[in-house]
Amino acid sequence: MSRAHRVDRVRARMAGADALLVTDLTNIRWLTGFTGSNGWVVLGSDTITLVTDGRYGVQAAQQMAAAGVQGDVAVGATGGACLELVAQACAAYSTVAFESTHVTFHQHTQYRAAVAAELVPTTGVVEAERRVKDPDEIEAMARACRIADQALAEVAPSLVDGLTEAQVRNRLELRMRELGASGPSYDTIVATGPRNAALPHHRPTDTVIEHGHTVIIDVGALVDGYHSDMTRTFVVGEPTPLQDELYHLVLTAQQAGVAAVRPGMRVQELDGVCRGIITDAGYGDWFTHGTGHGVGLLIHEDPFVNRAGDAILQVGDVVTVEPGVYREGFGGVRVEDLVVVTSDGCRVLTSSPKDSPCPPSPPTT
Amino acid sequence: MSRAHRVDRVRARMAGADALLVTDLTNIRWLTGFTGSNGWVVLGSDTITLVTDGRYGVQAAQQMAAAGVQGDVAVGATGGACLELVAQACAAYSTVAFESTHVTFHQHTQYRAAVAAELVPTTGVVEAERRVKDPDEIEAMARACRIADQALAEVAPSLVDGLTEAQVRNRLELRMRELGASGPSYDTIVATGPRNAALPHHRPTDTVIEHGHTVIIDVGALVDGYHSDMTRTFVVGEPTPLQDELYHLVLTAQQAGVAAVRPGMRVQELDGVCRGIITDAGYGDWFTHGTGHGVGLLIHEDPFVNRAGDAILQVGDVVTVEPGVYREGFGGVRVEDLVVVTSDGCRVLTSSPKDSPCPPSPPTT
Repeated sequence: MSRAHRVDRVRARMAGADALLVTDLTNIRWLTGFTGSNGWVVLGSDTITLVTDGRYGVQAAQQMAAAGVQGDVAVGATGGACLELVAQACAAYSTVAFESTHVTFHQHTQYRAAVAAELVPTTGVVEAERRVKDPDEIEAMARACRIADQALAEVAPSLVDGLTEAQVRNRLELRMRELGASGPSYDTIVATGPRNAALPHHRPTDTVIEHGHTVIIDVGALVDGYHSDMTRTFVVGEPTPLQDELYHLVLTAQQAGVAAVRPGMRVQELDGVCRGIITDAGYGDWFTHGTGHGVGLLIHEDPFVNRAGDAILQVGDVVTVEPGVYREGFGGVRVEDLVVVTSDGCRVLTSSPKDSPCPPSPPTT
Repeated sequence: MSRAHRVDRVRARMAGADALLVTDLTNIRWLTGFTGSNGWVVLGSDTITLVTDGRYGVQAAQQMAAAGVQGDVAVGATGGACLELVAQACAAYSTVAFESTHVTFHQHTQYRAAVAAELVPTTGVVEAERRVKDPDEIEAMARACRIADQALAEVAPSLVDGLTEAQVRNRLELRMRELGASGPSYDTIVATGPRNAALPHHRPTDTVIEHGHTVIIDVGALVDGYHSDMTRTFVVGEPTPLQDELYHLVLTAQQAGVAAVRPGMRVQELDGVCRGIITDAGYGDWFTHGTGHGVGLLIHEDPFVNRAGDAILQVGDVVTVEPGVYREGFGGVRVEDLVVVTSDGCRVLTSSPKDSPCPPSPPTT
């Protein structure tokens, strides 16, 4: 699929500068298809130049061509030579915008010395376009979601078998790879019991999953550079009244959030839908994080869905909806789906069952 | 083990500024023990203040105490509040050095607006001390090396079984985790055949490992945040004369490099030992990367061992020695060990066999 329209969309945001120097590798990948670990893009009103080093010259030309981006590749033998090529690509311009949240102070000093143009700090120019996903990006994420769904369906029955958090993590990550993922989307979270499950970002340990525990599993797959993200919470054995109450409270809040998603909605309003339900039930201070975040080539990207967020949802945004409650001594509950905003609401990309906290039985063979 | 001496070592490098603002999370971890994902350290001549957000206040105090670092923890509710706390911690100083390769242009603008002191750019202040490892850091890396050695010993016999690169990768990473690693040290490389093994940083694919192929396996484990790094190359079946020649050429170069390591040696000289042997044999232009790099809390850190490097090896440096040769149509050979520089040479932390490129037979049970 051609990415030429992406280049045009970013150009339309460049008002005020003659060119844009793109240095963030994720932004470069999204714009040009280039996946190397070293590169600079100079985007002018009718030119685009990708500078890289000798390891990546052939690859860069192939990937740009495959992406349908008409541009030049310039190859430098050293870091200094690359900087000089960047300066040459900027030579025709009076003002060059740069990504001030991706360029270090040290790099800026080097650019300022090498580039004749006035350097103008900007933030979020490419990101503002990158958050709106193309159909092929959505399909990659949908495939990643299906892989995580399948892995969880296969592994969840074993939660009653006395495994450790780390063993469950290992099985999930192995199955995702066997199912075609290039890896996990992030460090898989398996958090069990009154202490570990109370930490939203707990890392798996040798803690054994015991009868009576809540278990939070936050798992995603990586496909073609695109991430998925999903959380399910289980209770091993018969839920206590409090486990049952909080599970269904979080589920209700999460389903209300998914049902509320629509283009034109301010993200803080979406956060408020989930948070209001949990707060009204008296557990507002147990919900210690935001409701969600954008997902794409990064696992966390714009738009961030929280109380302070003033971004407005657009068709093509892919965001998580993931309220949760946590308390030491109780543990925690989180339910998370990944959704893509559509013209009339959203499409849910993750499809693991969530109506009950009981782990599924093993499939009968 | 107390880290107070680390704080003192860094203070001794602060000449010229009244305080150092540390923002790189790896440097913060090394200095204070704090492992959270958001933090700032203001290090004065007799004070140290760690600023973080509400998620990490308790953890930060616990980790600093466990590290034996006497200091203050200040907790901000928002990013703006944290910045204000950083400014307060800097208020007693006229000049504050900051890490100019870790601070973005945008962050610098924010610090400049909030902090009254003069901000002075510096590079590599903490890194210059961090590269010299304590005994407990070396022990963590030695343990990580033993885990990778064991995983490779168990998986290498299966290289003759017609597996894919990705399957071998999956087995290695699963075994490392089962043996106690918190994960792989980096994305494990399994690169086979005339095309894939010719790429030094190939990522595993569904390519089947065939009779006659060279197979490069670059694998390490992560233990307590510390990395290991090792490469072995195998030939499946009877090596051809060229495979045999190049294997033993690279092995000879690598062993000569390990034998040459000593404190006081300039890293470009170490690079030259390996490169000279390969160049003298006529394969200099097949050796397309540097000889090695430092390893610690990062998989790639100071000192970098290459032709241009002018760093001088010190007792406690942990570096890789990893010459290799690559050519499309042939494939590649790389042999890599991780060594710690000692007063009279070095100690090799990795111990997988390397005298022959033939995969080991399965252990007899």
